[in-house]
Amino acid sequence: MTQLEYALSGIVTKEMKTVAEYEGVDEEFILEGVKKGEIVIPSNINHKNLIPKGIGRGLSTKINANIGTSDAYTEIDKEIEKLNVAVKAGADAVMDLSTGGDINQSRRKILENSPVPVGTVPMYQAAVESISKYGSIVAMPEEFIFEVIEEQAKDGVDFITVHCGLTFESLKKLKDNGRVMDIVSRGGSFTIAWMLHNNKENPLYKHFDRLLDIAKKYDITLSLGDGLRPGCLEDATDAAQIQELIILGELVKKSREAGVQVMVEGPGHVPIDQIEANVKLQKQLCHNAPFYVLGPIVTDIAPGYDHITSAIGGAIAAASGADFLCYVTPAEHLGLPDKEDVKEGVIAAKIAAHAADIAKGVKGAKEKDLTMAKARKALNWNEQIKLSIDPDKAFKYRVNKNISTAKTCSMCGKFCAMKIVSEYLGTSATTC
Amino acid sequence: MTQLEYALSGIVTKEMKTVAEYEGVDEEFILEGVKKGEIVIPSNINHKNLIPKGIGRGLSTKINANIGTSDAYTEIDKEIEKLNVAVKAGADAVMDLSTGGDINQSRRKILENSPVPVGTVPMYQAAVESISKYGSIVAMPEEFIFEVIEEQAKDGVDFITVHCGLTFESLKKLKDNGRVMDIVSRGGSFTIAWMLHNNKENPLYKHFDRLLDIAKKYDITLSLGDGLRPGCLEDATDAAQIQELIILGELVKKSREAGVQVMVEGPGHVPIDQIEANVKLQKQLCHNAPFYVLGPIVTDIAPGYDHITSAIGGAIAAASGADFLCYVTPAEHLGLPDKEDVKEGVIAAKIAAHAADIAKGVKGAKEKDLTMAKARKALNWNEQIKLSIDPDKAFKYRVNKNISTAKTCSMCGKFCAMKIVSEYLGTSATTC
Repeated sequence: MTQLEYALSGIVTKEMKTVAEYEGVDEEFILEGVKKGEIVIPSNINHKNLIPKGIGRGLSTKINANIGTSDAYTEIDKEIEKLNVAVKAGADAVMDLSTGGDINQSRRKILENSPVPVGTVPMYQAAVESISKYGSIVAMPEEFIFEVIEEQAKDGVDFITVHCGLTFESLKKLKDNGRVMDIVSRGGSFTIAWMLHNNKENPLYKHFDRLLDIAKKYDITLSLGDGLRPGCLEDATDAAQIQELIILGELVKKSREAGVQVMVEGPGHVPIDQIEANVKLQKQLCHNAPFYVLGPIVTDIAPGYDHITSAIGGAIAAASGADFLCYVTPAEHLGLPDKEDVKEGVIAAKIAAHAADIAKGVKGAKEKDLTMAKARKALNWNEQIKLSIDPDKAFKYRVNKNISTAKTCSMCGKFCAMKIVSEYLGTSATTC
Repeated sequence: MTQLEYALSGIVTKEMKTVAEYEGVDEEFILEGVKKGEIVIPSNINHKNLIPKGIGRGLSTKINANIGTSDAYTEIDKEIEKLNVAVKAGADAVMDLSTGGDINQSRRKILENSPVPVGTVPMYQAAVESISKYGSIVAMPEEFIFEVIEEQAKDGVDFITVHCGLTFESLKKLKDNGRVMDIVSRGGSFTIAWMLHNNKENPLYKHFDRLLDIAKKYDITLSLGDGLRPGCLEDATDAAQIQELIILGELVKKSREAGVQVMVEGPGHVPIDQIEANVKLQKQLCHNAPFYVLGPIVTDIAPGYDHITSAIGGAIAAASGADFLCYVTPAEHLGLPDKEDVKEGVIAAKIAAHAADIAKGVKGAKEKDLTMAKARKALNWNEQIKLSIDPDKAFKYRVNKNISTAKTCSMCGKFCAMKIVSEYLGTSATTC
């Protein structure tokens, strides 16, 4: 049985208990959330070393780090390093987006080493292997995508992105309305190419029931992908995007009816003033399914800094109700991230998630800031470093910019406001 | 005559013309904005090499970089390097916050080398020099702060932060209501210490007319500082902060009546869900004076990453109507920034400002993103790098992560969605 089916039967699973404990909420709250489909717990029955996390309404905002090989970088060991860096920096989930080298081996190694939920986009493997097996992506038999999904499911993948809403109906809206960037989703581009070449409907839409059967068997959570997500601000919130979202909303209902856990993916590239509307629209059209946003980045002109552009968008999205943020690294739009990029991306996304959790009133969020504020007021540097989102970086800055005996910091030095106020107002003790 | 007095007389100055041209708006629009006090053009009559910038309603969001020595780092040359880095990265203004070494010399060198408006906090120099001249900060004669202001004004400083709203009235609200962090403003802490020790009202409030006389003589723009700004999220939007803001609103009126340009400073540390309210409140209480926010950072727990926490807050603030963002560097809360920190801080603030300008509908803002989107769609890498907010960084990423002949990037490699879609959909040509 899936977590959703257990919840519908009123059974609190050990996964729900783990989630409740982590969030500091009642088990009943998790049970109810899962039952309504407002919370998902991606946890494939075959992912043995998993510590499950909950994603959805009322829980802390989660973040995902994308890792995986590409045809230019095929070493699996490098991806395991990135996995470890991501988990250490606080990633709540990772996606293995491998398209280069031995894709099965990559995924199995990542699953073996990952305590956090692992997601994939099965269409990537299906497309890449279609080239060697059948000569091209478009020559892929319908059967093959389901074989790949089943194989990945057996390995223990916890959630899969499936671009089921990319149909001739949504594609028509793209054609009728036009767009600057057309399609920027890799999975979306493979699907479209296949559909147009074969003049056949998207198999993941047409045979959605078959997908549900596999998902149910292994309790894979479906992450309904947005293959028509806009690739630039100019295309944001357009007809094609919203048409696809409407279809995804219909598939959310079907999934839940089948007892399959489901969440929905969203953009991408969105101007600040459209983010809240995107979140509200998704929540409404998709019946409060957990919302997984890819960034969003809030300007297109900052390659090299898209961890920052997406931290801005992610914070606003999560504060507006998004539940799950896919990180973006500084390498986005320029190349495959290395482990330093992965770390920067995870920390930026964690900052966005935490800042949003304060705004959302998530349990325990603002208390972290209060503890830090007290350590700062007391000029207690060891404590400040310990409480930092990245203690290593805070420590390095502290050591490199100050003499070791300094009680204040080198920005204000002896003119530290907190030191002066403590001395004159006597409102709190300055202890180091 | 000040820019405000010229505007009130209906005269379009060359400074207004420069601003109108830079913003791509009519001179009449600038004239009207300056006249109403909704736009300021900080431009001291003695700052000879200045290219004036406008700050305020309807204009692009401006950003400021703080530089200057501290008692731990006194080298002026390093500060000039930071000035150059900041201006190259796109800072619209700099503030010289020097408190170490030869403060007069620092300021003069910075003014000599700065094409952008230069601000200071005269109380810093007054306090530091009071120690050598009079034995302590609190022994400073009232006269001395005005002498320092006059001297800085003569040198050509374009705007000064003056904590005039820090009075016994606002201090009472701090005492009555309590706070975790008390006062974190350096200028605020000096002022409070002086007031309490001498049991005298803040001279910059009591003798505000005298301040106005100096400001008028040199056309210095007053930046009414928030000495009671909260130093942590827990203290945000509290009684002391708002009490001070009410007083600043009264002083805005007095300044305008005297023909003195004026803007108002705001927090600081603000949870995401309180930022918009802070901006609306300032605009209302301060009669639409340009709003200059210090960040705001949206969580306290990320020292080492406060350029990101403030980019989130700054973007939301500016999208809500703030006009001028003070950058925060990764070194904030840990030490004096070096030139790399300055660059990171400026770029993060520029991203926030630009993303907000798109939301605000500022002229020419979204067009930059559209141009980038077209270059990206065309896989035109030279053009993408040229259009980047930091071409050097984008170029380094591109070169380090890709082979020189690559038409796509190493993230997707041959599975680039844009390449595939162009080939199958034929919607646009892929040119490199």
